[in-house]
Amino acid sequence: MAKKSNEYLDVDPFKIIETGFHKDRAMVSESIFSLGNEYAGIRGFFEEGYGGKSLKGSYFNGIYEYALKETENAYRGIVKRTHFTINSVNWVKCKIEVAGEVLDLDLAKIDSFVRELDMTSGLLKRSFNWHTKAGVISLCFERIMSMDNCHEMLQRITFASKNEVQVKLAMHLDSNVLHWSKDCYWNREKEIVEDNQYGVFTSTLSTDQSLLSLMQIETKEEPVNSFSLDKEVVVEYDFQLKDKTTFTRYVINICDKTNKDNFVGLFKQAKEELKCFVSKGYSQMLSENQAYYKKVWDSSDIEILGDPKNQQGIRYCIFQLEQTYHGFAKDNNIGAKGLTGEAYSGHAFWDSETYCLPFYLFSNKEAAKNLLMFRYHTLDEARKRASDLDCVGACFPIATRNGKEGCNLWQHASLQFQPSTGVVYAIMHYMNLYNDKEFMQNYGLEMVVEVCRFMLSRGQYNQDHSGFGYFGVMGPDEFQMMVNQNTYTNYLAKKTFEYLLELVESKQYDIKSIFKKCGCDEDFLKDIKEASAKMIILYDDQTKLFEQHEGFFKLPHLDINSIPTSDFPLYAHWSYDRIYRNDMIKQPDVLMFMFLYNQDFTLEQKKANYEFYEPKCIHESSLSPSIHSIFACELRKLDEAAKFFEFATRLDLDDYNCNTCEGIHTTSIAAAWMNIVYGFGGLRSERKTLKLAPTILPKWQGYSFKINYQGSKLLVSVTQEKVTLSLEGNPIELKVYDQLITLKDKYELMRQ
Amino acid sequence: MAKKSNEYLDVDPFKIIETGFHKDRAMVSESIFSLGNEYAGIRGFFEEGYGGKSLKGSYFNGIYEYALKETENAYRGIVKRTHFTINSVNWVKCKIEVAGEVLDLDLAKIDSFVRELDMTSGLLKRSFNWHTKAGVISLCFERIMSMDNCHEMLQRITFASKNEVQVKLAMHLDSNVLHWSKDCYWNREKEIVEDNQYGVFTSTLSTDQSLLSLMQIETKEEPVNSFSLDKEVVVEYDFQLKDKTTFTRYVINICDKTNKDNFVGLFKQAKEELKCFVSKGYSQMLSENQAYYKKVWDSSDIEILGDPKNQQGIRYCIFQLEQTYHGFAKDNNIGAKGLTGEAYSGHAFWDSETYCLPFYLFSNKEAAKNLLMFRYHTLDEARKRASDLDCVGACFPIATRNGKEGCNLWQHASLQFQPSTGVVYAIMHYMNLYNDKEFMQNYGLEMVVEVCRFMLSRGQYNQDHSGFGYFGVMGPDEFQMMVNQNTYTNYLAKKTFEYLLELVESKQYDIKSIFKKCGCDEDFLKDIKEASAKMIILYDDQTKLFEQHEGFFKLPHLDINSIPTSDFPLYAHWSYDRIYRNDMIKQPDVLMFMFLYNQDFTLEQKKANYEFYEPKCIHESSLSPSIHSIFACELRKLDEAAKFFEFATRLDLDDYNCNTCEGIHTTSIAAAWMNIVYGFGGLRSERKTLKLAPTILPKWQGYSFKINYQGSKLLVSVTQEKVTLSLEGNPIELKVYDQLITLKDKYELMRQ
Repeated sequence: MAKKSNEYLDVDPFKIIETGFHKDRAMVSESIFSLGNEYAGIRGFFEEGYGGKSLKGSYFNGIYEYALKETENAYRGIVKRTHFTINSVNWVKCKIEVAGEVLDLDLAKIDSFVRELDMTSGLLKRSFNWHTKAGVISLCFERIMSMDNCHEMLQRITFASKNEVQVKLAMHLDSNVLHWSKDCYWNREKEIVEDNQYGVFTSTLSTDQSLLSLMQIETKEEPVNSFSLDKEVVVEYDFQLKDKTTFTRYVINICDKTNKDNFVGLFKQAKEELKCFVSKGYSQMLSENQAYYKKVWDSSDIEILGDPKNQQGIRYCIFQLEQTYHGFAKDNNIGAKGLTGEAYSGHAFWDSETYCLPFYLFSNKEAAKNLLMFRYHTLDEARKRASDLDCVGACFPIATRNGKEGCNLWQHASLQFQPSTGVVYAIMHYMNLYNDKEFMQNYGLEMVVEVCRFMLSRGQYNQDHSGFGYFGVMGPDEFQMMVNQNTYTNYLAKKTFEYLLELVESKQYDIKSIFKKCGCDEDFLKDIKEASAKMIILYDDQTKLFEQHEGFFKLPHLDINSIPTSDFPLYAHWSYDRIYRNDMIKQPDVLMFMFLYNQDFTLEQKKANYEFYEPKCIHESSLSPSIHSIFACELRKLDEAAKFFEFATRLDLDDYNCNTCEGIHTTSIAAAWMNIVYGFGGLRSERKTLKLAPTILPKWQGYSFKINYQGSKLLVSVTQEKVTLSLEGNPIELKVYDQLITLKDKYELMRQ
Repeated sequence: MAKKSNEYLDVDPFKIIETGFHKDRAMVSESIFSLGNEYAGIRGFFEEGYGGKSLKGSYFNGIYEYALKETENAYRGIVKRTHFTINSVNWVKCKIEVAGEVLDLDLAKIDSFVRELDMTSGLLKRSFNWHTKAGVISLCFERIMSMDNCHEMLQRITFASKNEVQVKLAMHLDSNVLHWSKDCYWNREKEIVEDNQYGVFTSTLSTDQSLLSLMQIETKEEPVNSFSLDKEVVVEYDFQLKDKTTFTRYVINICDKTNKDNFVGLFKQAKEELKCFVSKGYSQMLSENQAYYKKVWDSSDIEILGDPKNQQGIRYCIFQLEQTYHGFAKDNNIGAKGLTGEAYSGHAFWDSETYCLPFYLFSNKEAAKNLLMFRYHTLDEARKRASDLDCVGACFPIATRNGKEGCNLWQHASLQFQPSTGVVYAIMHYMNLYNDKEFMQNYGLEMVVEVCRFMLSRGQYNQDHSGFGYFGVMGPDEFQMMVNQNTYTNYLAKKTFEYLLELVESKQYDIKSIFKKCGCDEDFLKDIKEASAKMIILYDDQTKLFEQHEGFFKLPHLDINSIPTSDFPLYAHWSYDRIYRNDMIKQPDVLMFMFLYNQDFTLEQKKANYEFYEPKCIHESSLSPSIHSIFACELRKLDEAAKFFEFATRLDLDDYNCNTCEGIHTTSIAAAWMNIVYGFGGLRSERKTLKLAPTILPKWQGYSFKINYQGSKLLVSVTQEKVTLSLEGNPIELKVYDQLITLKDKYELMRQ
């Protein structure tokens, strides 16, 4: 793996700390110090402006636009116009001037720089001393977004000086923001300058959405001026600093995702909310956030004893997952970069169900359910997509924010079906844990049926009708582009079909009405049964190997260790076609379905396939190493488990992929959670009975994780010697090391 | 085949005639009535303007530009900026006004419309009576481009009327022309209005090329005004028409393909040429062109007795090939649409060598050689392309005008290698006929070696090193996109390697110096030998079938007759990915290599493969039917041969593909010539001894074709009963129906 650690942050159990400004990491830090509350996110850029490289990004979940230009050669089924979450109002912007010098950390003389993100409150704080011609000024910038009242966002700037210094401060709300540093997707609608309140109301170019930002500033200083510009308002201060003075900016940001003309309604609401917010004040808001995060840590903290870096890392992962998504709205989802950058367009991928869902399943039922509801609410778009592909049923998009396919690389959008089967897997997973029959009857079943219809219509029988499968597809491994009988695709389709058949056989649901609603013909179930029974699964009983796709075993062999490190990432250095014609893989494919349906396979099979595919994998996807680590844990190859785990928790903190500057790897860090819970903890949840089989790295003193299961809270603590299960709530049944137990409050056993 | 005839032209042996204006075919006629002289081409649009749909296209061979915007997602090896032959000066533009009405055939009341293209002179003539408020005026427009003096182009407009009518005429030279009806790629440089001469000098936006148009008008009328505009000059007349008056416009169009700053030199040259041109006059120019075409028909006419439509059709094909290319310049090539439209960007494809070259090989040695020299002169670009694909040697582009790869669909540009092996095939073919050792030593060998190096470096051994072949390729059949071991690719690579080995063994060339120049390592020949010996050729001795690629036989079967006609063309109606996952093919692939290396295969093999692949082929490429017809001839399936030949000669005249409006199918109509000579005539030329094996369609009384061979002229006449070979020149050796004969002057035998 051509990944290496680039450490520069201080290690701390609950904080991320940068001591001294690391200018060469400025954009990496912008990403790492991002704040979010699911409703919105803001990168950790410097509010006062910065002359060096910077992405001043502020994003609102579900506020998006379409590309200005169409894709070339957009044949039928190829996406003509992609869409993306757009950069939005800069609500922390300010300008600070002393003695003719405008503060800019690219140029300013400073000392004692400390930046700190507190994961017990979501408070971001940055302080330093600025050496101006007029003397030294201490500055402290704080920023926080409310987790409970998602429109509330706060900034505080504190100035202190031993001398008397004249300071100019301008505080802006600015919607003149460029997306991809190129285009502004906002129309001017209205600026507000009245009664000490300042606001900007803008609408999107074409998606009929709007955003109102309204702010009020609390300070003992008097403004000298306030005015509006095009899509911008400014409040100016010019004050004599003596000792200390503070500016607290209260901002209410409200989006209307479906209407751009409701200024009157939004403004009324914002004014009311702003009034409450100001009267509540900074301290109470901070306490509320602390209380919020206390609950988070109480229910989902992971402790690692004897490994402070991973301790910090895993908490950072959980913290960022929480910031990005905790499921308070059914139309939100999890972008590959969360709300921390523009790469991947704010799109949700199959990652949401396959990599992120387990964390929510075991910590936050509502969030888990809402992730599924996102798919239900976009089911009609998935139906249209299936039709664009000359199929029936529903094809869930590879990349989307609004339910439409957003990926305009046809080779991915038209050939990869793991998002569709992934939705069914997620429904099954959710049902295993919550047995939510109402959900299944009202929403789940329809999705299962529509995905089955799609997978049936996209599949084909071979010439003699003896086998059913998928021709011209790409599996999860994107280095084998257009192949036949990708075993992941076939296996997932088979399991998807079987799940529907199981639901039918259970006789617990009114399936007929769903069949009718979806327009299934009378042979539908028969066809599903036959396709499922005849599904081609390339497997060699001698070697116990699944073949990744037809012909994979015959591909020329490439020794991945012979690739010079400078060739990575391959997409940037190799001719595009060269990537696709050897037995190198980018990420797990066979191992991926063996992970998802772990208990379908023997240890022998897992060993054989792990040992065959692992040496072929270059992990160019950050989703890859954790899955390998989980297998290595199960196979008790602890050195390898440790190697693959090495950067799972600190992927972004130590910028292993050298691209954290673009935003953090939100969905990948969800895999870090899985790496501990499924890997070291040996949790298996794809069958109705939960299973645990903990192991531990030799260098750890111990670790523990918490999960919610059937309404109870389970704490799993593992040391070198033993495993302790502690339960709060009703007794549960589960398997530990294959032994079925009923856990009441506490259970201890030797670690195996 | 979802192709049907849309006849509307009169049948005539040497003319193309449209009687009555077919408004619904206006753009088709624009293409069909295109003129060209290799140096330039102009569509048959109405010089006076036309309010209906029209593409006013004027193109100069080798005058091109790059796309204004870059390809999205251009990973390494993907073309960032394509290029294309650009629409250029409109040198026939005029405006005619009578009694306040501007002539526009979209609106005007006319009768007796006749448009006529004379294939014995290249004169295009259009006449009609125009009913104006002031009376009826007879108009005749003539247009001709000199075949001998390529800069000379002439237009004549004749007005006649029985009444006295006041007529306004403006004659323009206009470089404000849009390409793709969108962008003008010309910079203004200079307009000339002096001494009765009017000119426009413009340069291309970025390619450092320039074009000077200079004209003089011969008429008894006096201009009332002349002036210049931006990139345009205008001469205005306002005359009283009585009886008849004529305006003859002499135009000299000169390009500078490498310099945009040589106005002085070009202007001097143009003035001199214009002087000669005017003094020569219309009649002499017409005679010169008649003499030119007499030679063409003398050396390459095809006669078909008893089939006037195909008679006209095949002559139209030969005429258009001659107009597009006769090899007077080494930097010209043959665009898929010749110089008759903008589709396919004026690019040359593998068609040049594989479909067009045979016509030139047997009619015009210089043209044939220059087609090869085009590749030699662009060899450095092909080397760069190979390097862009992380290979060595030379990879000739899929589509090009300037030698660079011009196709920005990576799946074609990076996966199809028939242009490269096609160049070697063409060299071999040329050498068979002309044994031009100087060419081989100085040019051919270097190309053969570089293509071998490329094909060696792009190929890969399978896991146990027992077989060599190509992974991730597309063969000629573009409906099987990214496959392994495409047999066409492998077979051609093998033959390419073998050809080099044969050249080495012949000891007739200094190969060492070429190896040195190309940087071949010392193992090169050994590697070529091994790869060639181990080349994977998928063949089943039982069925005698070659498998198109690995897995083709296992693809789901699609009955192509079940596809509704309204689904064609599939690219416009089917989801892009759907095209690629069944056993339907677009064009011959296995049959293509069996055509090229015909004598490598037994009749039994040809029969088996024809019968297997023909029913799977939908001929969505216009290059396809002729190849099938040639096989059907050899297999004496004359009904099928006739069916596939049906539209070969009249593809454009009867607009079978419904897209002649975009330009004529220049390279496809070359296949019509092959259909007769290789198909019915049974000519085989890929080995050193020429072979003939004529058959004839039952409905024909007879047919004949002429070829140049080893400096002699051979006339092959075929009737239902016999075959007559007539020779002018030195005796030649050839095989007729597998019997080796020495032909002196005449030889007659029974037709078999």
